Amino acid sequence: MARRPGSVKPRASIIRVPAAHARASNTVSPMDLIRRIKDGDGEFLLFALTPPRLATDRERAQEIADTTVARLRPVGVDGLILYDIDDESERNPGERPFPFMPTLDPAHYLANHLGTWPTPVIVYRAVGKYAPEALRSWLSAQDPSRLLTVLVGAASSSGRARTSLAGAQALQREANPTLSLGGVAIPERHSRRDDEHLRLLSKQAAGCRFFVTQVVYDINAAKNLVSDYHYECEARGISQAPFVFTFSVCGSMKTLDFLRWLGVDVPRWIENDLKHATDPLEASYQQALTTATELMVYCRALGVPFGVNVESVSIRKVEIEASVRLAQQLRTQLRS
Amino acid sequence: MARRPGSVKPRASIIRVPAAHARASNTVSPMDLIRRIKDGDGEFLLFALTPPRLATDRERAQEIADTTVARLRPVGVDGLILYDIDDESERNPGERPFPFMPTLDPAHYLANHLGTWPTPVIVYRAVGKYAPEALRSWLSAQDPSRLLTVLVGAASSSGRARTSLAGAQALQREANPTLSLGGVAIPERHSRRDDEHLRLLSKQAAGCRFFVTQVVYDINAAKNLVSDYHYECEARGISQAPFVFTFSVCGSMKTLDFLRWLGVDVPRWIENDLKHATDPLEASYQQALTTATELMVYCRALGVPFGVNVESVSIRKVEIEASVRLAQQLRTQLRS
Repeated sequence: MARRPGSVKPRASIIRVPAAHARASNTVSPMDLIRRIKDGDGEFLLFALTPPRLATDRERAQEIADTTVARLRPVGVDGLILYDIDDESERNPGERPFPFMPTLDPAHYLANHLGTWPTPVIVYRAVGKYAPEALRSWLSAQDPSRLLTVLVGAASSSGRARTSLAGAQALQREANPTLSLGGVAIPERHSRRDDEHLRLLSKQAAGCRFFVTQVVYDINAAKNLVSDYHYECEARGISQAPFVFTFSVCGSMKTLDFLRWLGVDVPRWIENDLKHATDPLEASYQQALTTATELMVYCRALGVPFGVNVESVSIRKVEIEASVRLAQQLRTQLRS
Repeated sequence: MARRPGSVKPRASIIRVPAAHARASNTVSPMDLIRRIKDGDGEFLLFALTPPRLATDRERAQEIADTTVARLRPVGVDGLILYDIDDESERNPGERPFPFMPTLDPAHYLANHLGTWPTPVIVYRAVGKYAPEALRSWLSAQDPSRLLTVLVGAASSSGRARTSLAGAQALQREANPTLSLGGVAIPERHSRRDDEHLRLLSKQAAGCRFFVTQVVYDINAAKNLVSDYHYECEARGISQAPFVFTFSVCGSMKTLDFLRWLGVDVPRWIENDLKHATDPLEASYQQALTTATELMVYCRALGVPFGVNVESVSIRKVEIEASVRLAQQLRTQLRS
């Protein structure tokens, strides 16, 4: 999902874990995510987290981080995504299914609590919330061998953006040109406007080297976007950037409502199955696995490089564990 | 597809092939399609044909029929569907991709040329073209142990229908109550109106014991319809009637345009793949197989009885052969 940060705290935050230590602490030797993205190669696995609530005290935040690292260690994740959460009420006038809770700045959460994380981290930045100088300062302080960033444009055209997406992309090229830059890809927007593949190509021209989707529930929407992107690249003679497909489990109708509020198209049959399942979480796990498997087969056949991202949406332990299980299963289906 | 007959020739036409001979001539022992439908069971295989053009002379029509029977014999098809083709220009104001060619009446084609066909035959009747008495006469003359019928309502609400669908269903109950009656199911209509499952339940209340879809290209549309139908049956405590999903291969963009003209939603990625494939027919075969396999898995998990129908859309030999190959492959995936 395209998330936006709450309070703007553009302090520099470099990860200081030595790579050697990091590698040794992981049971699966991770591939070099950054190199793979630079080469336009796929078949990598990411896991996406939302930082703890802003009100979380330092000690508790460290406990949460340590638990996360311990849970993910056996999975062999090639990279971690940290979202910025913002009150997106300007994006959608409908009632928000969950109350908005500001969260820790992902860059700070990473610097202060995820020092033992072994692989690269992709930090989201909602550029509309930042003054250009603050964004430049943050970008220039990042270590391109450890961190990647996904720059997200403002959700609405309300004109309140302090920096435009194009402006932010230009800042990245000036301030830290070797930093790997990603963009969001929204299959649902392609369903409505048929031009998301052209937006992606504009982002690619502006420096993006990978794209991350929202949570995929409508497989045809995802396939339509990938297909149009693939053939447009072919027609223009442009290399394809890896598509990272995001999947999640969903243990309750309220979570489903939230996904819809965020703009995710959830087909009726999936809603029906979850509503009637004796174990909605297991049903959702199976659906996500089926969708992921089919998209992987499709992309390999088409020749589009792809990665897989499992997003942990809920804070319920059983849902987090199902997310980790989904990542573990998808790990076995990726070619190393 | 919901097809309508051209000229109305409501002469009675009973099939006179002894069942014993028929069974012996088939290399695979066919299950009893009619009993299975009466019991609400699925896992059967149909093959759907359009009769030859009206201008075809008797000898040539027999050659075509003999070739068809010979081609299908090794497949072990549980039943044959014969469509009625009509100029559907009142249904769709857009230009027809292929010129309209009237075809032989399917009931006559069956009676005159398919005497050696070993399993039951499902004859489509577009009821709007028939006066009630003519329809009653045809219905009453059919042998319920050899023939099934799918009654199709008028395509548009132009008011030109000589018999309404409800009127025709009532005639069937009066004239030949043991004749197995089917109805068409249109997932695309469900995508637009969300009420196709309620239409199916009305048809079921009027005597329908199975439903046949148009060609399925949009798997989510099909799953949404099946899912809503399933849970509505559960809520009402009604037995489910088998869904027959129709698949086809498509060897050219013109055939694809024709499917769209008929109202089939073809996702963009499928169009792209066919447009760019070095072998569009093989690409289409693989797509149909993937879609069929996924729908079969889905229906089994949900507990909805289903059959599979392969429609031969084109008259090109290579496309017919690919259709037969698709049926052969799907045969191996059905539980006997």
